[in-house]
Amino acid sequence: MKAAIIGTTGYGGAELIRILHSHPLFTIKSVHTTRDEVPVWNEYPHLFNIMENKLEQINPEKIAKECDIVFFATPTGVSGKLVQEFVDKEIQMVDLSGDLRLRNTDDYQKWYKKEPVSAELVNSFVYGLSEWNKENIATSKRISNPGCYPTATLLGLAPVVKENMILPNSIIVDAKSGISGAGRSPSRANMFAEMSENFKIYKVNQHQHIPEIEQQLTDWNSEMQAITFSTHLLPTSRGIMATIYATLNKSVTNEQMHELYTEMYKNSPFVRVRPLHTYPSIKEVTGSNYCDIGINVDERTGRLTIVSVIDNLMKGAAGQAIQNANVMNGYEETTGLQFLPLYP
Amino acid sequence: MKAAIIGTTGYGGAELIRILHSHPLFTIKSVHTTRDEVPVWNEYPHLFNIMENKLEQINPEKIAKECDIVFFATPTGVSGKLVQEFVDKEIQMVDLSGDLRLRNTDDYQKWYKKEPVSAELVNSFVYGLSEWNKENIATSKRISNPGCYPTATLLGLAPVVKENMILPNSIIVDAKSGISGAGRSPSRANMFAEMSENFKIYKVNQHQHIPEIEQQLTDWNSEMQAITFSTHLLPTSRGIMATIYATLNKSVTNEQMHELYTEMYKNSPFVRVRPLHTYPSIKEVTGSNYCDIGINVDERTGRLTIVSVIDNLMKGAAGQAIQNANVMNGYEETTGLQFLPLYP
Amino acid sequence: MKAAIIGTTGYGGAELIRILHSHPLFTIKSVHTTRDEVPVWNEYPHLFNIMENKLEQINPEKIAKECDIVFFATPTGVSGKLVQEFVDKEIQMVDLSGDLRLRNTDDYQKWYKKEPVSAELVNSFVYGLSEWNKENIATSKRISNPGCYPTATLLGLAPVVKENMILPNSIIVDAKSGISGAGRSPSRANMFAEMSENFKIYKVNQHQHIPEIEQQLTDWNSEMQAITFSTHLLPTSRGIMATIYATLNKSVTNEQMHELYTEMYKNSPFVRVRPLHTYPSIKEVTGSNYCDIGINVDERTGRLTIVSVIDNLMKGAAGQAIQNANVMNGYEETTGLQFLPLYP
Amino acid sequence: MKAAIIGTTGYGGAELIRILHSHPLFTIKSVHTTRDEVPVWNEYPHLFNIMENKLEQINPEKIAKECDIVFFATPTGVSGKLVQEFVDKEIQMVDLSGDLRLRNTDDYQKWYKKEPVSAELVNSFVYGLSEWNKENIATSKRISNPGCYPTATLLGLAPVVKENMILPNSIIVDAKSGISGAGRSPSRANMFAEMSENFKIYKVNQHQHIPEIEQQLTDWNSEMQAITFSTHLLPTSRGIMATIYATLNKSVTNEQMHELYTEMYKNSPFVRVRPLHTYPSIKEVTGSNYCDIGINVDERTGRLTIVSVIDNLMKGAAGQAIQNANVMNGYEETTGLQFLPLYP
Repeated sequence: MKAAIIGTTGYGGAELIRILHSHPLFTIKSVHTTRDEVPVWNEYPHLFNIMENKLEQINPEKIAKECDIVFFATPTGVSGKLVQEFVDKEIQMVDLSGDLRLRNTDDYQKWYKKEPVSAELVNSFVYGLSEWNKENIATSKRISNPGCYPTATLLGLAPVVKENMILPNSIIVDAKSGISGAGRSPSRANMFAEMSENFKIYKVNQHQHIPEIEQQLTDWNSEMQAITFSTHLLPTSRGIMATIYATLNKSVTNEQMHELYTEMYKNSPFVRVRPLHTYPSIKEVTGSNYCDIGINVDERTGRLTIVSVIDNLMKGAAGQAIQNANVMNGYEETTGLQFLPLYP
Repeated sequence: MKAAIIGTTGYGGAELIRILHSHPLFTIKSVHTTRDEVPVWNEYPHLFNIMENKLEQINPEKIAKECDIVFFATPTGVSGKLVQEFVDKEIQMVDLSGDLRLRNTDDYQKWYKKEPVSAELVNSFVYGLSEWNKENIATSKRISNPGCYPTATLLGLAPVVKENMILPNSIIVDAKSGISGAGRSPSRANMFAEMSENFKIYKVNQHQHIPEIEQQLTDWNSEMQAITFSTHLLPTSRGIMATIYATLNKSVTNEQMHELYTEMYKNSPFVRVRPLHTYPSIKEVTGSNYCDIGINVDERTGRLTIVSVIDNLMKGAAGQAIQNANVMNGYEETTGLQFLPLYP
Repeated sequence: MKAAIIGTTGYGGAELIRILHSHPLFTIKSVHTTRDEVPVWNEYPHLFNIMENKLEQINPEKIAKECDIVFFATPTGVSGKLVQEFVDKEIQMVDLSGDLRLRNTDDYQKWYKKEPVSAELVNSFVYGLSEWNKENIATSKRISNPGCYPTATLLGLAPVVKENMILPNSIIVDAKSGISGAGRSPSRANMFAEMSENFKIYKVNQHQHIPEIEQQLTDWNSEMQAITFSTHLLPTSRGIMATIYATLNKSVTNEQMHELYTEMYKNSPFVRVRPLHTYPSIKEVTGSNYCDIGINVDERTGRLTIVSVIDNLMKGAAGQAIQNANVMNGYEETTGLQFLPLYP
Repeated sequence: MKAAIIGTTGYGGAELIRILHSHPLFTIKSVHTTRDEVPVWNEYPHLFNIMENKLEQINPEKIAKECDIVFFATPTGVSGKLVQEFVDKEIQMVDLSGDLRLRNTDDYQKWYKKEPVSAELVNSFVYGLSEWNKENIATSKRISNPGCYPTATLLGLAPVVKENMILPNSIIVDAKSGISGAGRSPSRANMFAEMSENFKIYKVNQHQHIPEIEQQLTDWNSEMQAITFSTHLLPTSRGIMATIYATLNKSVTNEQMHELYTEMYKNSPFVRVRPLHTYPSIKEVTGSNYCDIGINVDERTGRLTIVSVIDNLMKGAAGQAIQNANVMNGYEETTGLQFLPLYP
């Protein structure tokens, strides 16, 4: 299949190139930007001699004619508009932005503080949390790829929320992300001298991923209530850890909880439930599509701690996008994604 | 006054040297170790030409005779034994280890998994959380300096715990620390290649600082219950952020909460309550003795988020030790501690 | 004495504040910018509660009236113009930019690719390499502060160039700098995600500090010829190491060379010549005004290797500026500069 | 083909696993250590659920019987002894240590300060600088894999040394390496708190890679003389940059020099000669087997600057080892090595 990538100059776009370049079933046909038509390696010197494609302007007619699938790695607010130019065409779409995730367009307006696209357009996209929405993804042609924080959070919470094991108002997510999550546009906040030896909290209870997480949680279990959600910036390029706290609604042992997680993810090749009393760290998934999970039940407080770790550019963006593209086309979901973590 | 430092080769000891070297009222008389008797700058080349003292063996008689105050920057398990050799002498003591903090020696045994010193010895030391125990410190000659995590956590929680504004079983502390907190003994866990671009969680609900925090919380408010406490390792040398969550027991606005914190710390020169809707990051206190606090009340969940930030080697160790030594001797508490943060 | 700082929002300006805030003989009277008139801590939250000054516009009349000395921490190209508004006033000036260093204005034009100020104006400023130009500094009212790379390079080379011990065309400087040297304006090049785990070479044989270094070298020894000069970016906030290579013009032992360096810097409190066979690393001077030097004579090749290390914001900028201001006013040169390195 | 890896717990061994795990023509049959027989993922949690092999003791009989090729990722001093237990067996060997590189065993003794193996054994191994020794590698069964610094340095110097374009005594190599090059044994020097925000020089003109480089240079051009060689530690996990200086023996333009390099590496898929006036940085090859080269001729000094960049664990160790194994077995040299750099 032939693929186009729109929004190639961001980190998500670069990661799509890294994966698709060696994917056995997709070929990169063209890469697009709204900026200058220079070779990709002008923007990304690491691609010198590897990828000779020139960045092209976005011509929906041409793209739809030449390609079978288009990946939008464009910013929130841009994707929504672009997608509309493709809706009348025969082409698969995977969007990595936040524009097509929230079915309640008021929520979009409230949290993103931008104009939403129509609910109808949103509803024509399937939410691509691969592990838990596989059947819908398999029969769709349009995927809205989950956000990075929601991916880590939802994969961590799914078992206990679906099995109704926690108090509905007790979820607290303390999330930490590497800086690539903030994109490739320079700002004071993402300068090296500002972030090295630093650690910041931002958007306390204000992050636009909150409604996305709550939407999925209530889809799984209608009793679920508002969550407390904090996001922090790590002095790393990649990686997300969500440390999640919830109060158990009945007594459960660590062994029982571990058994539940292991069981629920036994058919999910990209979710690794760690042995009891061990926990994943972010570097252990760098460059790979894994989501690693560790759990701890604290008898003293009756609370569950869940540690969920991903590479934000892989399982949190480009990796999951390809995983969804695989599922959508009936391929093995791991195709072209079997990168081992790069360690150290 | 003449000071001796025992345990000079660790990071806490080095930080004591940095402060005392320019302190107007204390002079470093001698530095001690159980290792080789080499010049300090053999261990710490940054002190070359600055400090010509040789490291000396620990001779309690000589130290007590020549010095007015001794700082123990020795590891937990070592301090307790050493301190006993000084109890019959006329010398002020400030201990930075965990050996003399827990009045309940069973707690010590349970959480530290070591033999405790006697309760009597522990009780002869005053807990040196400077901001909240100033009167006792001022009249004591023996200080047990708080742990780094407890300092950040307790300064963050004091106002709402003392004012009884939160549900007693609702406290969750998600703490993150730079690696110097793990000391200067090499191990795989603190290697650069293992920690760069990494972020780890460790000792989930098992950290030995839990009973220290709970002891102080119940001293302040006897209704307080067990806390949930997670510790993480940041890829930084210094810095602690405690992100603290608690459920309010009544409706409070952000403005009221901010007013409370500002009021309660108005006479504490080292606690900076940040303006509403802004939050401190760890680099903003690096090298200084500040504890910076930001707060957020979330109306959606009725939960309070407290962000408390310190330099673990300063306010979390050596800085607070000197602050206590100042108070103990009737000096202005900021004497010799007015380092501005080193930024960037 | 009352001081004004112009260009406060860059890292050099912030470092001037850090030093002057606790300097016993200078007081910060006002801080200036061309940007918004906000409190300094809006730009630098680490100064919250420490410095309440508002940033002010640049009013030369007012500044000259209220202050005794003005520090220009403004960018090259800006300083030169600003300085001209102060030349007819009674105020001491210390400029940290490259605008007033090159006596040959053609060199300025060639290497900086900007319009030079007049040679007359340049010549009214004294080059502030404190260790080697003290007498001129002491009798001047206008100092042009050396660049960061020139400071490290020239202090490393001075003994062998002045003593005429190396082949005149043999100097190679391989210099490495932390990222704060590139200023506080965000650009792709200084983003965290681009620089973490990275190391770059830039401006190979093109750096604008080359003529500054060569000017001083030929002042010391007219036989000196063009140097080879490479600059690299380290994934650190601070620090410069210049590794300098030169061919000896006669046989010299390591011991003789070490003796020479020790002798020539015996009266320079900020230059620490390290013991033979040991070498400084950049973190060993962080936050301090030291320049640390190590040397090695290689018998196999007859070449000398010099390792010269500074904190680029201190000895390479603000620290040396204050050192010069001290000398200019007859104060002890170390006044207000006795910061120990912050380690780790 | 079936492969055994000996010395699996170091970073080089882990990188061999990463490559061989997805190599189409080699299968990992067994992994060996002298430590405990635990699953590999006990040592490397990132391999959890990926590689279930247990670490095994080193049994040469069994290995030779079950495997076609053995990779020694063991330390210098260990490899030499181990290899001797395999010399009488029918098995291909690739050694990554320094034990089998120096034909002059006196050099080994002088620079490594250890007992050398016999010259005969050394001579039975072919030096595996893949790009320049392909014919010998193709007909050998025993490869001594080059050191990391020599790989970067020699690939950078080969064109001008072979073409006799530089003065024989003019080579200066200023090399910088990430910390993984120092191995996975904890020491104070490789602790995070010691290396973060740091940059060190070490083994000035003493590094054991000097004779290895000089041996190859004089093989290429017998006039070449001793080199000046400095090694530095970067605060990064991976990556080497060698900045190399040499004086041209005649006038050459940048264009001519660039043409020469491009021509000489036109058939080397892993060497990327960068466009004139651009230079590679280390992160642009991270995780890949590329060696990227940039060159600059300085007319002012008649000197050539060469910038050569590799990932020390890939082209500097495991990557080149597999490249050699490919060549030795008649496979395409890029087989299983087409990793794109991981960026950012």
